[in-house]
Amino acid sequence: MPRPRSEKARQAVMSAMRRALAEDSYAAVTIEGLATEAGVSKQTIYRWWPSKAAVLGEALLEGELPGSDAVVPTTDDLAADLRAWFAGVSAGQGDMVGIEVARALIAVTATDPELGLVLNERLAAPIREWVKTRLRQAVADGDVREDVDADVVADHFIATASYAALLGQPLSEQRVDAVVQMVMRGIGARD
Amino acid sequence: MPRPRSEKARQAVMSAMRRALAEDSYAAVTIEGLATEAGVSKQTIYRWWPSKAAVLGEALLEGELPGSDAVVPTTDDLAADLRAWFAGVSAGQGDMVGIEVARALIAVTATDPELGLVLNERLAAPIREWVKTRLRQAVADGDVREDVDADVVADHFIATASYAALLGQPLSEQRVDAVVQMVMRGIGARD
Repeated sequence: MPRPRSEKARQAVMSAMRRALAEDSYAAVTIEGLATEAGVSKQTIYRWWPSKAAVLGEALLEGELPGSDAVVPTTDDLAADLRAWFAGVSAGQGDMVGIEVARALIAVTATDPELGLVLNERLAAPIREWVKTRLRQAVADGDVREDVDADVVADHFIATASYAALLGQPLSEQRVDAVVQMVMRGIGARD
Repeated sequence: MPRPRSEKARQAVMSAMRRALAEDSYAAVTIEGLATEAGVSKQTIYRWWPSKAAVLGEALLEGELPGSDAVVPTTDDLAADLRAWFAGVSAGQGDMVGIEVARALIAVTATDPELGLVLNERLAAPIREWVKTRLRQAVADGDVREDVDADVVADHFIATASYAALLGQPLSEQRVDAVVQMVMRGIGARD
């Protein structure tokens, strides 16, 4: 039987991971560095988490998710709003949620489905909410068909950004434009 | 220094993985079973591959990729063809490329970017080819705008299917319909 976790040590590791992410890239985070920062032994970390990704998963699950509070300006140009927001998501929102963290999230999901599903739901929730709100406005403005399925649109962007992150190939500006254009034509009101 | 691999033993493990996948689910494949089947020790496998996913990655990379030879019927109804093909991809093409294998592929990609990129390119190539060919025909038929970007369309389906696999949530028939409908509106010739 593994020894039960010390809650104090656990929280120290969680904080160390969040601080490390805020100050450095995920790739540069090491178990050794986390251990030093948290004041626990490497063995303690390895006993409780199978990998760095698992530590990240738990830290993200508990704390504020970086990027989830990204403010997206809403103008009266739906295409421009979608482009701005999608480009932001694709670029990985600065230092915090870079390709590296996205990959780690995907690794967590692929290896620990239960944790991954919860993490993805939490990550996707604000995106879905934003798309839903923005599309409701667009329908009211007559820019978008009334029967638009906001979940399909949101999932399209989420899936495209996730796949790009998985491949480690950020979407080019040109590709972002092309994706938004196809979606706009797909959901736009007939003129 | 790790001992150099024996090519004979390596091939035996590769064959064992391919046979195991053909006969059983990926989830049911164990390192122990592979070792027995290949006539090598568990230690030998662990010395050469960090995980079951890594064995799968190498086996897929070398051998015929299951599903890559899936025959998609081409009719004169583009929407129906896209639905049939996408539903096939999403359902995981029978026993061979189920959600489990797709997840494993994603895990390989997230943990071994180089191998993952090569695998994804190989997996995506026939899909891109099919979409490109089918769209060329649709343009000729006047069903689709001439400036359609086949890569954007192909990537949409690939990303959506990958994300569903990642979450372990196969796409419902209803969702497949909604995705195809949005794409069809997005690329369809104005009528």
